[in-house]
Amino acid sequence: MAAPPKTKRLIREIVLGIDPGSIVTGWGLIEIEGNRLCHVAHGTIGVSAALGQAARLSQIYRGIHDIVQQYQPAAVSLEKVFFSRNVQSALKLGQARGMALLAAAQNQIDVSEYSAAEIKVAVVGYGRATKEQVQRMVTALLCLRGAMRADAADALAAAICHVHRATFQTRVPRPLNGRVKGTSWRDYVDIGSKR
Amino acid sequence: MAAPPKTKRLIREIVLGIDPGSIVTGWGLIEIEGNRLCHVAHGTIGVSAALGQAARLSQIYRGIHDIVQQYQPAAVSLEKVFFSRNVQSALKLGQARGMALLAAAQNQIDVSEYSAAEIKVAVVGYGRATKEQVQRMVTALLCLRGAMRADAADALAAAICHVHRATFQTRVPRPLNGRVKGTSWRDYVDIGSKR
Repeated sequence: MAAPPKTKRLIREIVLGIDPGSIVTGWGLIEIEGNRLCHVAHGTIGVSAALGQAARLSQIYRGIHDIVQQYQPAAVSLEKVFFSRNVQSALKLGQARGMALLAAAQNQIDVSEYSAAEIKVAVVGYGRATKEQVQRMVTALLCLRGAMRADAADALAAAICHVHRATFQTRVPRPLNGRVKGTSWRDYVDIGSKR
Repeated sequence: MAAPPKTKRLIREIVLGIDPGSIVTGWGLIEIEGNRLCHVAHGTIGVSAALGQAARLSQIYRGIHDIVQQYQPAAVSLEKVFFSRNVQSALKLGQARGMALLAAAQNQIDVSEYSAAEIKVAVVGYGRATKEQVQRMVTALLCLRGAMRADAADALAAAICHVHRATFQTRVPRPLNGRVKGTSWRDYVDIGSKR
């Protein structure tokens, strides 16, 4: 009996990118079919300025939770944060990020995080690309028409980055213990040959 | 028929103080009966170091949600954060704080925030008191015995501060629009006479 064919990861799997924010949270869903990126949906979750911060966070959580329930993504992708204007901004961003992380954890969805540079390289091919360049490339890659909010474009960009990285990882063997220990090409070949 | 007696706020109401943290979250419940502060319960929510950050946040959320469901507090009190070691610390703290705020919002509980100095003044009488002084005063005020973790003591201190402030606010009239606009005693008397 022939061995079953190897199935590629991420085939017809939906990835949810989220760009959390205390005022506007962008989200975007993409699907990969073979080598083709397909746009599924995107949008923003706005919060009522009249509400207190706890109620606003609840709105963000409900919004993300509803999207997760509706589209059942296989993975969630977020941008890593290294810099912030000040402590208050980082704290508020952390609170909003917490809603995205909680919604993912409660639905047993793995969360991947990528730096802004990694996302820009994946989408534009240049780690210091501007917001407008990211927006234009996301629109072009997903064959979209019309303008899109920067928050939603950033979320879609995070999702595209995850697909690129996940596809790359299925093609390039990883070490058995999950950590890349090799420091030269000899170590790398050595790790690959143990599979 | 005589008018019903005015009821004081916070009589036999439970207040939940929370000291959120990405590794350990302290919590403490107090009840006020007349002028007496009564300890209800306190503890800490620890997270498994082996888990990812999303799963850890889910543990914190579940822990706080269970406490809220069990004790049905009327108010949640938190310490305001102004300073942090760095952006990463502020971000992680924000994520943990988000869990406390979400659990409160989902159960329609008002959240009050007080600065560290306000809490120390309410508990120790001195805005620059040390952690140990806060811990000792919390133990004395609530007639507790034995040692208590600093995180739980900080949570109880936040709850005590809320009770002090709420009791004060019921005794001193506030302006009708909820904001103190008066800058002299004449404005203040004027606001009071409109009630």
